Amino acid sequence: MTDKVLDDISHRRYNPLHGSWLLVSPHRTKRPWQGQQEAPALNKLPEYDPQCYLCPGNKRAQGDSNPHYKSTFAFVNDYSAVKEEQQEYHPQKDAAGDGDDDIASLLLQAQPATGRCYVLTFSAKHDTTLADMSATEIVPVIETWTRIYASHLSALHPLRDAAARSLCEIPPNPDGEVEPAKKQQLRYMQIFENKGAAMGCSNPHPHCQIWTTSTLPEEPGKELAQMTKYHREHKGRHLLEDYVKVEMAKGERVVWQNDGFLVVCPWWAVWPFEVLVIAKRHVRALVELTSEERLQFAEAVQEVTRRYDNLFETNFPYSSGIHQAPLDCTEEEAETSWFHMHFYPPLLRSATVRKFLVGYELMAEPQRDITPEQAAARLRDCGGELYRKSLQ
Amino acid sequence: MTDKVLDDISHRRYNPLHGSWLLVSPHRTKRPWQGQQEAPALNKLPEYDPQCYLCPGNKRAQGDSNPHYKSTFAFVNDYSAVKEEQQEYHPQKDAAGDGDDDIASLLLQAQPATGRCYVLTFSAKHDTTLADMSATEIVPVIETWTRIYASHLSALHPLRDAAARSLCEIPPNPDGEVEPAKKQQLRYMQIFENKGAAMGCSNPHPHCQIWTTSTLPEEPGKELAQMTKYHREHKGRHLLEDYVKVEMAKGERVVWQNDGFLVVCPWWAVWPFEVLVIAKRHVRALVELTSEERLQFAEAVQEVTRRYDNLFETNFPYSSGIHQAPLDCTEEEAETSWFHMHFYPPLLRSATVRKFLVGYELMAEPQRDITPEQAAARLRDCGGELYRKSLQ
Ligand SMILES: O=P(O)(O)O[C@H]1O[C@H](CO)[C@@H](O)[C@H](O)[C@H]1O
Ligand SMILES: O=P(O)(O)O[C@H]1O[C@H](CO)[C@@H](O)[C@H](O)[C@H]1O
Repeated sequence: MTDKVLDDISHRRYNPLHGSWLLVSPHRTKRPWQGQQEAPALNKLPEYDPQCYLCPGNKRAQGDSNPHYKSTFAFVNDYSAVKEEQQEYHPQKDAAGDGDDDIASLLLQAQPATGRCYVLTFSAKHDTTLADMSATEIVPVIETWTRIYASHLSALHPLRDAAARSLCEIPPNPDGEVEPAKKQQLRYMQIFENKGAAMGCSNPHPHCQIWTTSTLPEEPGKELAQMTKYHREHKGRHLLEDYVKVEMAKGERVVWQNDGFLVVCPWWAVWPFEVLVIAKRHVRALVELTSEERLQFAEAVQEVTRRYDNLFETNFPYSSGIHQAPLDCTEEEAETSWFHMHFYPPLLRSATVRKFLVGYELMAEPQRDITPEQAAARLRDCGGELYRKSLQ
Repeated sequence: MTDKVLDDISHRRYNPLHGSWLLVSPHRTKRPWQGQQEAPALNKLPEYDPQCYLCPGNKRAQGDSNPHYKSTFAFVNDYSAVKEEQQEYHPQKDAAGDGDDDIASLLLQAQPATGRCYVLTFSAKHDTTLADMSATEIVPVIETWTRIYASHLSALHPLRDAAARSLCEIPPNPDGEVEPAKKQQLRYMQIFENKGAAMGCSNPHPHCQIWTTSTLPEEPGKELAQMTKYHREHKGRHLLEDYVKVEMAKGERVVWQNDGFLVVCPWWAVWPFEVLVIAKRHVRALVELTSEERLQFAEAVQEVTRRYDNLFETNFPYSSGIHQAPLDCTEEEAETSWFHMHFYPPLLRSATVRKFLVGYELMAEPQRDITPEQAAARLRDCGGELYRKSLQ
């Protein structure tokens, strides 16, 4: 057990994946809340919405029509943040090379960003969510992620054999598949879901996004650097390997587990009910999961999302994202990658009261109001059937 | 002028204050928005609200009563995130010192956090905001910040003489002043304001918070490290000194300026209309501002907040915060500090449509939809009288 005293005193905790600290103030939840209330999501959506640009058969913003797909369907985002082709950009340097210009090019640095952004639906049904789907129904989502990742991997990637195996093992989506950008090998693939209006999601149809980029983004870059450093300093052991071991031994932050995956409220959680899903063995990317592990991962995702919904009996908002080996990387970067998935949910006290990460958090340091141990205990306790089931 | 091409293509920009990159996708604002709408703040508040725990003469949560104060009033937060006294905490090490325990103490690091949190009202009037106040009315706010900072400085601080001067120059608040924690010298003072329900503010009475802590928080710590590195590598020049020079020469990101302060949408802005207020000369902390500069700083704050409100004709939400020399620091830390104030406002397109920093931003990298140059041009253009004035 953690020192019990941490339940009562303000303290900082260290996040070894980020190399940074956060502030924990367990007594803060005692303060009354008179601020903004979230509007709880209406549960009564139609199974098919003729206005939804993600429903099967419907027209999208730029005029394309969706096929009459049955489970998952991926397409290039009509408003992609990065694109495959754009005007070239070469930072200008003043030919004279005088001092002032040197300072300007040092302080005003830019680099072009290209890539491709996809949208991927989880289901043909407009009114479902991962929490409503069974693990078996979530498996096709994981299979689609795996095929998309595999098909975007660089030709000389350390995981190319695993990728080839996955592409053989998992049948192609009959409703069509997305193709990698043609002109260049991209560096990273970020799979993420924004769920709920509180997390900026503008369409309740269950879906995630996949942004592939020419550069390694900050967050996975920071984590990879930390994991590589740990690997070098600890005789080839992995940060998340050791972390899984420690959490399984301690138990107090474990929410759920099966043979393949551990679900914990991490020691360094920032969001009130933040959760980390970690592969128990050294899986570097989706393509290394066996078909049994894909089901185990689906179970883990199902457990997290169902428990979230049960916690406050609401359609729980969150952002989630998968971190794994870059699409193009060195041997060492592939070796030190460790497959995991983050869930960052904003709700704190109820379906309508969220935690705001604002002033102090933005200007000084993340701050949380309940301990991760308290959050884990509550998530452990709400594993029953999805609360909506019995209401229907 | 910046390369015009950056207005049209996706690119990354570098933030030298943080040492990190962000993604800029200027074309993204073309996408339609069907997501959450913010509720615009009602402007019709009473000048005095008997229910408000910040109004003069009213009772607070823990039973204390506010004095009948006239302008600013500071008190210890009734729900402080850190406190002066708490149980002691010493991380336990297993006496056996076996390997597993070493890993646990490496991966589950905590440290106690103590300090004091204050609330400071900007005005006795419940229904005003910094945007409604004149620069002369904002001066007392800056004077109070200065006195509080000065009185919390360590005895051997490199700025102790400036602090002593400030305390002589600025008369004490007749309604009482907050005292520093008695038992220990604190390390940092974070002054910040959360304004508007969208930024987690639960009381519209104009106020900020001041959290003083025993440790240097992550954000000012990161900035200080970057500024110190720059100072060492550039023959004693300062990062923000050079940045002010570059921005004044370029002009395209400048929103407003007077003799003492530059207001820019920084090259590396993340929030749509993010603004940085930077001292033009080397001011290391509030106590180094002359009385003339306090008025100039008040003017800058007034210009930013009024322009924000004018932009979408609404009570514009934001979080703001001041970064300056730590309360307790080395000669070099004091020397490399450079006084500045950040404004992080969430609105993107109108009074009701905000930018969500969610999935990709949290999992991968901050992403913005308009360029800082476009944002600065719009803020330059709305400097007239506060829009509400003519409506009254
Ligand atoms: O202290 P307040 O105003 O009640 O609370 C607000 O500011 C704090 C500091 O940024 C945040 O931790 C809270 O989430 C926010 O609601
Ligand atoms: O792409 P969407 O779902 O329209 O937009 C949402 O997710 C993006 C990626 O996290 C964010 O940049 C947007 O602010 C958010 O509203």
